[in-house]
Formats: sequence, structure tokens, C-alpha cells
Amino acid sequence: MRVAVVKNILDANSRIAQENRSLFDAHGLMVINLMSSPGAGKTTLLEQMGKHFANRLKIGVIEGDIQTTLDAERVAAAGLEAVQIETDGACHLDANMIQNALTNINLEGMDLLVVENVGNLVCPAEFNVGEDHKVMMLSVTEGDDKPYKYPLMFRESSVLLISKVDLLPHLRCDIEQIKEAARSINPELIIFEISAYTGQGLDDWHNWIQEQRAAK
Amino acid sequence: MRVAVVKNILDANSRIAQENRSLFDAHGLMVINLMSSPGAGKTTLLEQMGKHFANRLKIGVIEGDIQTTLDAERVAAAGLEAVQIETDGACHLDANMIQNALTNINLEGMDLLVVENVGNLVCPAEFNVGEDHKVMMLSVTEGDDKPYKYPLMFRESSVLLISKVDLLPHLRCDIEQIKEAARSINPELIIFEISAYTGQGLDDWHNWIQEQRAAK
Repeated sequence: MRVAVVKNILDANSRIAQENRSLFDAHGLMVINLMSSPGAGKTTLLEQMGKHFANRLKIGVIEGDIQTTLDAERVAAAGLEAVQIETDGACHLDANMIQNALTNINLEGMDLLVVENVGNLVCPAEFNVGEDHKVMMLSVTEGDDKPYKYPLMFRESSVLLISKVDLLPHLRCDIEQIKEAARSINPELIIFEISAYTGQGLDDWHNWIQEQRAAK
Repeated sequence: MRVAVVKNILDANSRIAQENRSLFDAHGLMVINLMSSPGAGKTTLLEQMGKHFANRLKIGVIEGDIQTTLDAERVAAAGLEAVQIETDGACHLDANMIQNALTNINLEGMDLLVVENVGNLVCPAEFNVGEDHKVMMLSVTEGDDKPYKYPLMFRESSVLLISKVDLLPHLRCDIEQIKEAARSINPELIIFEISAYTGQGLDDWHNWIQEQRAAK
């Protein structure tokens, strides 16, 4: 019974994700679904992208949080067009929430839409929202055993951003082990080592976005 | 329809949690449900508790992970009796999983049972498993805005362990802001500042356990 209910929910989600995708394609829009544990640095990365791409790419953001509009305020202050979804308890964003949020965002002339998902390394990976790419962040502070313990998100993502590498000297964390484990789960995974705080490694990530945008 | 299903699931969970609780009480056992984001330091804390309470308290651990038996191996190496639940995708432990795991653990003579939940700051807070206390960890690396963004776990917990305080000099994180926000959500919350890695602050946490154990 419970399995059937879950299957129905996922089927309904896929249908709405396809509708979102058609709308994104009609606008020639590139869409990233950005996922991580709480506090891995997603919002700080968006602030950096706002600065880097100012006057070059028009970027919109849909923020997902259980409560508060703190993140939408932060990215709006960085010059990005932002809409906040407060999920009121729900542990992930689904395609229907995104479809509703899209009525409050002007896609005309937009180059890139980033969906910043609820901070959760588990549930968001199960729900397509119509994105081109799932991109996940893993902070080195979370430890090097995480790919094996949370494999679905590593399997579903196109890109892994290993974040907070400026803290590595202070941690027991082997970044090579993260990469090896992640690639054993998903050999196609593109990996960038970054610090959204210091800016280290962001050039490669920004270049990747521009290449994907150009290929659209 | 979906709301009704969720309500049925939570009602069934409460019934089984009550059965677990009766079993724990029959053994005079103290039970902690330990929750946090991935990589906040739950397993490292259990290793420290294993060392500190060796020959003084008999501690059992039920480990919850989506995949792998890594954590059960770590705490068993620290001298604790450990059973691993692999949830195979599920984002939290529920009372039924604990009831099943209890058939594989000998409660006779045990003083403290710790349920180490799946690393997730959202979903585990919704499911009682029959515990005396919910205890949550928040790593300072996750940032000082987390209580407002993930309020349920702060509301449900008796104790907040603010972990990795040894990293504070390297972070933009105001620990006073964490405490103030957490107490605005839950004025009864007991807060300890710890580093499971360096051992800093663990005495107060260990004393709290012994006091609670003595009051049982």
C-alpha cells in the first residue's frame, strides 16, 4: 500500500517535471537543481555567481527552505532575481512546488535558473523538477565516507562540488577518498574542488556553466 | 489523500513507539535518539562515550544508515554493542525499524541505548522511536542560521550539542546566535558546546548522561 502511494507520487511528479521542462525549453533556459546537506555553502556559491556573472548572464533563483526567506534575501542582495518557497515542513522541493513558483518569476530573457533545494542529502535526489542538471555539493567538513552512505544523490548528479576546501588543513578528511568513492558510484561525475567563501576553484565551475549555456 | 496517508503512518509509528517504550521501561533502560545533519560528528561522539564510560555503563547502539555498516563497525571497535540498520533509501529511522532491530540486541544489563539516526536535519524529528530524549547535534560548520531554517528538530529535542567548536576560529559563525535562535524556538533546550574530535566540552555532556541515568 505504502509502496503504491510512493509510486503514484513519483509518477505525478515526473509528469509535472516534464511540463516544467517544456516551459524551460520554450524559453531556451538552462536549469540547475542544486542540492546538499544543510550549510554546505549553496547560498554563498550563488552570491559568488551573482558577482561573477553580473551583466553577463541573467540568473534567477528559486529558493527552497522549510521556513524563513533568509536565503532569497541573501541572493537578491547579490543581484539575482529570487523567489522563496517555504515548504512548511517538507524535506525536499518537488516539481509541483516549482511549477507554482514559476508563476512568480519572469523567465523572459533569463539565461540560467538555479533551484536551491532544501538542505538534505537524501530526499531531494528522488524528485526531478524539470532541470537540465542536478548539481550536488559536499562539504569536506562532512567527512570522506559520505558517498558510500548517501549514494543516490551522487548517482543522480552531473556535477559534484566539493566545498569548503579552505578548511582541509584543520580536518581529518581525505579528499582523494571522496573523489574515488564518488566516481565508483558515478563514473561520469564531473568534480570541482571549491571554496565558496574564499573563491578558490570557482573559475572552473563558472567556465563549466558557460560551456553548458553555450551548448544549449 | 496524501495527508491522510501521512497521518496513518504517524499513528502507526506512535503505537509501535509505545511498545518499544514499554520494553525499554521493563529493562530500566535509558534511550537516546541522536540526530543531526550528515557528518556533524555523531559517530565520533559515540566513540568518545565508549572510551569514557568503559567499565562503568553498558552502552548499546542502533546505527541507522541508508547504506553501509561503516558506523556500526566504528562504534563496535570502540567497545560498544552495535546493530546496524541499513534503511535502503529511507531518510529516517521509524519505530518499526527499531522494533525489528531490537530482536538482534541483548538489552539485559544494558544501561543506555543510543539510536544513531540517519544523517538528516529534517525527517528524523517527525518519528518517535520510544526514546526518553531526542538529542540533536549541529556542527558550527553548518552556519548560525540553521535553527530558524530547520525548527522542528530544535523544538523536539531535549539537548542540543553544538559540535566542532574547535573549528570556530576558521569560520564565519556566531555561536551565540545559534544559542539565541535555538532557545527562541525551544526555551527548555539544554545546550552543550563540544568537539567530539578534541574532547572539548564532553565532561558536561557525560555528566548530564549520568544524572539522567541516575534519575531513571
